[in-house]
Amino acid sequence: MPASSFIGELRAQEAILPSWNDGPAKDAILGFVRAITDRASPSYAPPEDRIATFDQDGTLWVEHPVYTQAIFAIDRLRILAPQHPEWKSKQPFKAVIIGDRMAMAKFGEADWAAIVGATHAGVSIEQFLDIAEQWLKAARDPRWKRPYTDLVYQPMAEVLEYLRANGFQSYIVSGGGQEFIRAYAQRVYGVPPEQVIGSSIVTKYQLSGGKPVLMRLPKVFFIDDHGGKPVGINLFIGKRPLAAFGNSDGDREMLEWTGAGEGTRLKMLVHHDDAVREYAYGPAGGLPETRVGTFSPSLMAEAKDRGWTVISMKTDWKRIFTWE
Amino acid sequence: MPASSFIGELRAQEAILPSWNDGPAKDAILGFVRAITDRASPSYAPPEDRIATFDQDGTLWVEHPVYTQAIFAIDRLRILAPQHPEWKSKQPFKAVIIGDRMAMAKFGEADWAAIVGATHAGVSIEQFLDIAEQWLKAARDPRWKRPYTDLVYQPMAEVLEYLRANGFQSYIVSGGGQEFIRAYAQRVYGVPPEQVIGSSIVTKYQLSGGKPVLMRLPKVFFIDDHGGKPVGINLFIGKRPLAAFGNSDGDREMLEWTGAGEGTRLKMLVHHDDAVREYAYGPAGGLPETRVGTFSPSLMAEAKDRGWTVISMKTDWKRIFTWE
Repeated sequence: MPASSFIGELRAQEAILPSWNDGPAKDAILGFVRAITDRASPSYAPPEDRIATFDQDGTLWVEHPVYTQAIFAIDRLRILAPQHPEWKSKQPFKAVIIGDRMAMAKFGEADWAAIVGATHAGVSIEQFLDIAEQWLKAARDPRWKRPYTDLVYQPMAEVLEYLRANGFQSYIVSGGGQEFIRAYAQRVYGVPPEQVIGSSIVTKYQLSGGKPVLMRLPKVFFIDDHGGKPVGINLFIGKRPLAAFGNSDGDREMLEWTGAGEGTRLKMLVHHDDAVREYAYGPAGGLPETRVGTFSPSLMAEAKDRGWTVISMKTDWKRIFTWE
Repeated sequence: MPASSFIGELRAQEAILPSWNDGPAKDAILGFVRAITDRASPSYAPPEDRIATFDQDGTLWVEHPVYTQAIFAIDRLRILAPQHPEWKSKQPFKAVIIGDRMAMAKFGEADWAAIVGATHAGVSIEQFLDIAEQWLKAARDPRWKRPYTDLVYQPMAEVLEYLRANGFQSYIVSGGGQEFIRAYAQRVYGVPPEQVIGSSIVTKYQLSGGKPVLMRLPKVFFIDDHGGKPVGINLFIGKRPLAAFGNSDGDREMLEWTGAGEGTRLKMLVHHDDAVREYAYGPAGGLPETRVGTFSPSLMAEAKDRGWTVISMKTDWKRIFTWE
């Protein structure tokens, strides 16, 4: 059966990717899955090689105006502040405590590293998971007045589901903190802890009263962003993905690495061009510049050059969230 | 049905662990699997939590008199020596090139780090896997005159198989090099690349003539030994194992971490006490002392204290290798 009629047939099945409008993005996904799973296809891959990697912030859920984990860190810093009177006169802590948004907007890597060290370390992994889960239950996004874990893009949840139904393993490959994502990835995305790749701090094994614990230390271990994404993928999986999804400059190398493999590969970038239903930022496409989830003109040029598929939230997605 | 009659029934089924003699070690494995898989058991665990971790050298295959990967490194160093005339007068390279066994026996961590840097880095991950595979095809163990990949313990291969048949995922958790183990783990143990946890060097993403490569750099990234084993297990899996197998002091923390979980857990140590069929070394049990795979008296004391099961190669295993 020729590919075009096959895709036509799939389109007719409303159950597949129902929140996607017909168009090149949906066709790219359907055509890719067919190429990988059809035993007669030259790109057929056995289930054990069906690896798909997904960036998380901005690709699977909302990242604007601030990463969810940054809000968690800020909330946690304020909770811990009474135990650290010295923070009142010490940056970057002071800015967070007094709510100096101008200063916080200018935070660089060193500032965030200090905040992560103060808020994500000094506890065991079990304690940290518990702290993260409690926060996720209580916190609400100010725009939608909902838990942050509700801000998952329904069309992407359908892609996760569709790929898994076709034998794929769906990994999260995020610049965000691995353990923070593990606190909700199973429940929210159906992604188990062993398929969450992210940035991490050093953990140390120690006996505490005869009981072994893994303590989280205020020291960066691995940054899973830019070139770190293919490095992390090789470290954790040891296989090259067949499909990779991202939305910003930090995902460039993951898509390059995926695309450099043989046979059919799916490389997709979510473009936030829908200020009404979600957010619009760029600067690709003349949208407002942003430091959170930058999609630079050079990334757009590379996408065009290498034949990556750019997903327009505005035109490719029928709806954004499950509860809409 | 009471546990004892259940085990009696399993014993009767010769297909289960046929290379194990009846005894406490075999019973521990059978009783454990029953406790985890029987829905009526208080220790029942769903398949996604059935994680088993295996040390490799000395637990799944022979490690004496020298680790296989060390022999690989020595062979590779000699192959590369003509391109590095400066090595002739520089330790630790000189000792390897001239075959000074006395000097090599005294190599410390810094010496091995230099040798690993010289022999395991400077190539891409694909190149390294190819080099390792070629070596494994050609190299022979001097005692058994067989490829090193033939020196897998048949009883342990049966445990891997038996646990997987009962829904377990079987991870390798080795102090040895992760990528080196990946070169054969699927073929030899049925363990896929994403279930190989090991020590690693830094890899770096770079474009080489427009093509992305992951280059291996001569810099240690992670040491998966002692306390590094539970750290690696949490990093890669994010779940605590239900079963852990080791054979030396480097596995102590992995067994402690496993044993500290709730419910039934299997903690086993292979003891090399069979000089005729394999090797005998200790110094636990009054066997000769060794730096390769040390099983110290304090580890034996801890095993006894915490109720870990010590496997005697001599009495628990009917045969050692598949081809015997």
